[in-house]
Amino acid sequence: MTSRIETPAVLVDLDLARRNVEKFQAYADGHGIRVRPHIKTHKLPYMAEMQLDAGAIGITCQKVSEAEAMIAASERITDVLITYNIIGEAKLARLAKLNDKVKLSVVADNAVVVDGLSAHFSKVGKPLAVLVECNTGANRCGVSTPDEAVELARRIAAAPGLAFAGLMTYPPVNGAAAVQQFMSKARDLIEAKGIAVPMITSGGTPSMMDAAEAPIVTEYRPGTYIYNDRSLVARGACGWEDCALTVLATVVSVPAPNRAIIDAGSKTLTSDLFGQTGYGHVLGRPDISIDQLSEEHGRLVSQGEIGLTVGQRIRIVPNHACVVVNMVDEVQIVHGEEFVAAWPVVARGRIT
Amino acid sequence: MTSRIETPAVLVDLDLARRNVEKFQAYADGHGIRVRPHIKTHKLPYMAEMQLDAGAIGITCQKVSEAEAMIAASERITDVLITYNIIGEAKLARLAKLNDKVKLSVVADNAVVVDGLSAHFSKVGKPLAVLVECNTGANRCGVSTPDEAVELARRIAAAPGLAFAGLMTYPPVNGAAAVQQFMSKARDLIEAKGIAVPMITSGGTPSMMDAAEAPIVTEYRPGTYIYNDRSLVARGACGWEDCALTVLATVVSVPAPNRAIIDAGSKTLTSDLFGQTGYGHVLGRPDISIDQLSEEHGRLVSQGEIGLTVGQRIRIVPNHACVVVNMVDEVQIVHGEEFVAAWPVVARGRIT
Repeated sequence: MTSRIETPAVLVDLDLARRNVEKFQAYADGHGIRVRPHIKTHKLPYMAEMQLDAGAIGITCQKVSEAEAMIAASERITDVLITYNIIGEAKLARLAKLNDKVKLSVVADNAVVVDGLSAHFSKVGKPLAVLVECNTGANRCGVSTPDEAVELARRIAAAPGLAFAGLMTYPPVNGAAAVQQFMSKARDLIEAKGIAVPMITSGGTPSMMDAAEAPIVTEYRPGTYIYNDRSLVARGACGWEDCALTVLATVVSVPAPNRAIIDAGSKTLTSDLFGQTGYGHVLGRPDISIDQLSEEHGRLVSQGEIGLTVGQRIRIVPNHACVVVNMVDEVQIVHGEEFVAAWPVVARGRIT
Repeated sequence: MTSRIETPAVLVDLDLARRNVEKFQAYADGHGIRVRPHIKTHKLPYMAEMQLDAGAIGITCQKVSEAEAMIAASERITDVLITYNIIGEAKLARLAKLNDKVKLSVVADNAVVVDGLSAHFSKVGKPLAVLVECNTGANRCGVSTPDEAVELARRIAAAPGLAFAGLMTYPPVNGAAAVQQFMSKARDLIEAKGIAVPMITSGGTPSMMDAAEAPIVTEYRPGTYIYNDRSLVARGACGWEDCALTVLATVVSVPAPNRAIIDAGSKTLTSDLFGQTGYGHVLGRPDISIDQLSEEHGRLVSQGEIGLTVGQRIRIVPNHACVVVNMVDEVQIVHGEEFVAAWPVVARGRIT
């Protein structure tokens, strides 16, 4: 039983996770979209294998060290996209080792990164597949215009040691139309230069059920969809019953009639607001707000009597599941209220 | 040189840390206040030993697992206060093991916790020292009034297996007057019942240089003071030159004239705003704001041209040092621009 788990703890319901994975896979299959889940949410080789079992064609990682951890942990992970500008000799040497092991691809949004990749990979055996990252409105990384995408695609195609592999974007929410417009223009311009565009990849859980509205996209990279979280419930993307990840916490103090303190703070729930007010949703208690976190204390407040007792346990859906996973060395796998196993978070804390 | 460190990375300048530790120790020595640093900031046995060398009488931890990690790592750590309500058989059994090894004390702010401690420690050999946690205005944990403090102190003093050890508070910023008032009244009332109050402990770096304004306090528990951070600079508690911890990051993209992206996101800097606007201070560039973080991307914006180039490295003072330390498996010890060693963060992620 979960009553035997020491708190605070991060619980993951395996059946719910599988159901979430299969739901999007069915949608993607129905629309001819390949699925390449982002492992940042779970950081677990077993979950990646579950996604492959459901029909995913490979995985997405954000950092070289994440890819290293996942590839080392599972022989079934053989196709990895790292959606990051990779810079510096140390990282490039690590990247080359991974490129020898699996089908690897990376992205670039500027000439310095492309030239750095080429300088390294022109000296090693196998060419590296590189996509151009495009800014379709999220205003993070990415070339700003289709013309810039063409220029960078040509640079990659001409660079010793590199192979141009397509276009990548992390779009804004509800960005399907913007993706379709940018990518169509970029693809046509690149193909007009005689360069093939084998793959166009987009991502993001919030708008994933509208992925087919950008039919030019060949691959989709959802991350949070496997667990869901409070931000996705707030967007109407899922219900509380679809949230596979919860934080189990114990009430350690009820110092006032409308205030209680739990043993989960920012070291478990994190300070990510992710557009929400408060730091999570107490399951079954929508009247309670988690209004303040210290590192090891969460403060719960209510309008009326809070009605909690010291020692009582609660389950919380965090604002943002991915960052919570990164806080803990292990997650507790559960089946409803039944404890199944503790799993080490294999790719936790991999920031380089 | 720090140029050989892979980014992102958390750098700690040992000389600056020592200077910060010695500065407060000198103040406390001058006012007859004992120092019991909170290890949550550094989570490193060596830093605790440095604090003991400077004159600290012991350490503070927030969770049992933190105390376990620190005690296991250093034979010199022999006096530990855990400032937390500890609940549940598993944690109590672990606590009893620590109580056999070192001079240990914990806190309680309610009868359920006291009764739980007593039920366990009445069956083991050595009594457990318990302080009453008092709410002096921070409105987190703590009994609300001196009268409640007396009641709980009497309960502890009468409980088999427990020894009443004094009063503890985590005060609000600039709370010295409130601490003095609450603690004086509580101490007088408790002593009037014939119970000695051997120790009164307060804490918090922001107001530590005013600790002597609550002369009833016998011990002070600063945490962040060893490293300092942007929140403390903003409060006027220190300058940038006193910040011993910085995040080293690489510019990976400059997609617009006034925008750059670095390889440190919320998995390094965390989303803690801690009362600030933006997610950290770029050393030497007060004109830049870190306005948005994803897990692995930090977005830097400026009013005019940002003037950064892809591949360039920057150092950032984070909003809150303690939470940044908890994100990484190791910190890079530096001496100015010289790399000294990588140290594993021994008590990282200890949440139970």
